[in-house]
Amino acid sequence: MPNTSDLEQNGWSVEGETLVKQFKFKTFVQAFGWMSSVALEAEKADHHPDWSNSYNTVTVHLTTHSAKALTEKDTALAHKMDALT
Amino acid sequence: MPNTSDLEQNGWSVEGETLVKQFKFKTFVQAFGWMSSVALEAEKADHHPDWSNSYNTVTVHLTTHSAKALTEKDTALAHKMDALT
Amino acid sequence: MPNTSDLEQNGWSVEGETLVKQFKFKTFVQAFGWMSSVALEAEKADHHPDWSNSYNTVTVHLTTHSAKALTEKDTALAHKMDALT
Amino acid sequence: MPNTSDLEQNGWSVEGETLVKQFKFKTFVQAFGWMSSVALEAEKADHHPDWSNSYNTVTVHLTTHSAKALTEKDTALAHKMDALT
Repeated sequence: MPNTSDLEQNGWSVEGETLVKQFKFKTFVQAFGWMSSVALEAEKADHHPDWSNSYNTVTVHLTTHSAKALTEKDTALAHKMDALT
Repeated sequence: MPNTSDLEQNGWSVEGETLVKQFKFKTFVQAFGWMSSVALEAEKADHHPDWSNSYNTVTVHLTTHSAKALTEKDTALAHKMDALT
Repeated sequence: MPNTSDLEQNGWSVEGETLVKQFKFKTFVQAFGWMSSVALEAEKADHHPDWSNSYNTVTVHLTTHSAKALTEKDTALAHKMDALT
Repeated sequence: MPNTSDLEQNGWSVEGETLVKQFKFKTFVQAFGWMSSVALEAEKADHHPDWSNSYNTVTVHLTTHSAKALTEKDTALAHKMDALT
């Protein structure tokens, strides 16, 4: 399993084989703009989040379904998500 | 409560005070393009979905939190979502 | 014509009846995320930019076609665009 | 130069080293949803369009700047753009 300590210090938690974080924005407009940037990174990496959105809140679950494990693909996307906030 | 029979014939179900539908697309690219259009309609109407996305699937929950009920705002957004597929 | 002095101090120029500004981002990902947020504000206001994008650069032209003039709709959207960077 | 005859039959024109097409949609909402899908394909391919948007119209210019020529990257993205309409 990849090292997640830096992510955990930045609001991510590890739940089983999944990285979880809730992102809060001021508005839906800011939340969805961020989702649009993240979507571009996800498609480029061919690694997509399971995520839900309710107004200004986005809850993200990252895992590597094909490996049934948490992998470097997940930590890489998590870092990109943080960098885009 | 607004009439939902036409929506129910088009794949929506009523669960308590919530309209629910799962949309399936061929790819993440198509799913997220649709979400981008829906986001524009939602922000314009100032009425936002609770929705989750996993690759090519988007699951939508619509309710009017302020009214603690299903209202015309929900059925209007549901119709726009269907029209944009 | 609305007052544009604060916008002009923030990189906008007035060319005839049009407000013009070039926005530069680090990457296409950041440029398009910003465009997605701006699109939501534009659709909500029912006032849309003429804009072009080339990788990390977005060039915006704002005018009110119906009035053949620069109006408060343009300065309002310009301020929102700046706030979203 | 790649073969562009099928694209030219589908509304594209070749202007020097550039493929050009104007896409018209019913609404801004549909235009921007399409742009969001195209943006995902472009970022994935690391090949981005020069494009401009005015309400329901998107004008696209495709060329490969690094090659100073029209290449297979351009025709591939053009086909994806057509497929996403």
